[in-house]
Amino acid sequence: MKSKFAIGVDLGATNLRVGLVREDGRVEIRRSVPVGKDKSAKKIASLIGENVVSMIKDAPVKPVGCGCGIPGIVNPEKGIVYRSPNYPSWRDVNIAKLLKSKIPIPVIIDNDANMYALAELLHGAAKGRKNLIVLTLGSGIGGGIVIDGKVFHGDRGFAGEVGHIVVEPDGVSCMCGGRGCFEEYAASRAFVNIVKSMRKRPALDPKYLTPEFMAKLAREKNRMAINLWKVFGSYLGIGIANLINTLGITAIVIGGGIAESWDLFIAATRAEIKRRTYKKNVEHLKLLKASLGGSTGIVGAASAVFQR
Amino acid sequence: MKSKFAIGVDLGATNLRVGLVREDGRVEIRRSVPVGKDKSAKKIASLIGENVVSMIKDAPVKPVGCGCGIPGIVNPEKGIVYRSPNYPSWRDVNIAKLLKSKIPIPVIIDNDANMYALAELLHGAAKGRKNLIVLTLGSGIGGGIVIDGKVFHGDRGFAGEVGHIVVEPDGVSCMCGGRGCFEEYAASRAFVNIVKSMRKRPALDPKYLTPEFMAKLAREKNRMAINLWKVFGSYLGIGIANLINTLGITAIVIGGGIAESWDLFIAATRAEIKRRTYKKNVEHLKLLKASLGGSTGIVGAASAVFQR
Repeated sequence: MKSKFAIGVDLGATNLRVGLVREDGRVEIRRSVPVGKDKSAKKIASLIGENVVSMIKDAPVKPVGCGCGIPGIVNPEKGIVYRSPNYPSWRDVNIAKLLKSKIPIPVIIDNDANMYALAELLHGAAKGRKNLIVLTLGSGIGGGIVIDGKVFHGDRGFAGEVGHIVVEPDGVSCMCGGRGCFEEYAASRAFVNIVKSMRKRPALDPKYLTPEFMAKLAREKNRMAINLWKVFGSYLGIGIANLINTLGITAIVIGGGIAESWDLFIAATRAEIKRRTYKKNVEHLKLLKASLGGSTGIVGAASAVFQR
Repeated sequence: MKSKFAIGVDLGATNLRVGLVREDGRVEIRRSVPVGKDKSAKKIASLIGENVVSMIKDAPVKPVGCGCGIPGIVNPEKGIVYRSPNYPSWRDVNIAKLLKSKIPIPVIIDNDANMYALAELLHGAAKGRKNLIVLTLGSGIGGGIVIDGKVFHGDRGFAGEVGHIVVEPDGVSCMCGGRGCFEEYAASRAFVNIVKSMRKRPALDPKYLTPEFMAKLAREKNRMAINLWKVFGSYLGIGIANLINTLGITAIVIGGGIAESWDLFIAATRAEIKRRTYKKNVEHLKLLKASLGGSTGIVGAASAVFQR
């Protein structure tokens, strides 16, 4: 039997990744190009278009379609991106229409975390599961919810905006207009915000309060950094407990750059989840580290094409 | 065409309601009996059995099945009740098996809030919707999540345990072992707990801090009571915002005894939701008051039979 191919596109904040992917999830060709300074929807659609068209030419057989994972709030049915933190000029942009005018095979779009979830479900850490929650911890928290083997989108594509569930009702302001959002306490800005709320603030320049620097310090056995990671882990646990109590799903994949510090936070996360959920349910808890690495986005985006 | 009938059972804390229900949701016969003092699973199963058997005899044609809504955490697939706040002696009880030994038609069980959700979806305030969140505000908060026209149960029946999502991470202890759970701030104990956290506590005997008494005071234009209802409404809004950000579902039915005080809290709830969710999503927000009244539970339980 001849292999089927699809093209997966993963649009990041600084790089565009494009890959030719087999149905079994193997990546045949992979390419990464910088996004550049002009981040208008028109420019980005052209950039995606060129790269996809060139990859179609390189493919041994014509790919069955092209899936695009986009950071932001995406309505896959309408093909619209409502807003994207990394592409602030995009407001209610019909990006699918722009892409379809440039790409000669069927195009589908979805939120990048949803694509990520699909990849981990079909080919990664959560292979074989029916229901799954995926969190990507980066500059914010991306969320993907899989129900019965399919990404759940909610009424208009807003499902999985879990970065904005509340973990501190009177906490720091969030870009979304709310306060104390999950992604302010368990993503890149977490340490800045956690330290803000401490009575005895450590004497540390805020510029050092990044996950990277805190990880470095913690690995050098710095007590303060070790403890701050525990607080980070607890907040992550509160957010995950909320998701478990809402969805009754106990398989959780955690990915994104911050997941590299897994060993520094996961014990605190697990303890917090246990404290806040039913024993009978969380005895089945699977906290899984994302396993597909840098290709997750393109594999997921291509998988969405095959699933369709 | 002859009408099909099913029997719906709604087990409450003090009363058992049983009804003969047509496929269109009309209740033909309805009966309510006190549960009595012996709350063992065996005794309750017998009580349900007797009443269902007697109703089968009264039915014009043989009912196609019997659905039972049970307060607590229910695994409908296995027929097990893991725990029930109103029936503390039930621990991992296979209630479906007990019922099947007494009832000569097919029996299905589910959590009462899930049955409630199904009734409001098929015959009530949310008729015609695909996705729906239902909250019942009583001694705790019951939750039912409908996805694509069907109750979503999660991995093991624990979906919709929304009473235990966190709205105050360091708040009052909850029976579940957690802290600051939603149902401590937006159900029957809300006013006691809200007052506890106030710097200037009103001089009021805690026994008056019930939703009923607070509603009476607020309707007499008592300023303190009016303000406490606003705080209640805000907490309800935080919890609902979390659900909206997680599920992307914007149709919310609110029922249970406390929903009778709708006008006292709903403006604060709506404002809090707007503050904490995406504008593009909540411009579609439908906060709906449950519309089926006292028969909701039996209609939902019977509907589950027809849906099966």
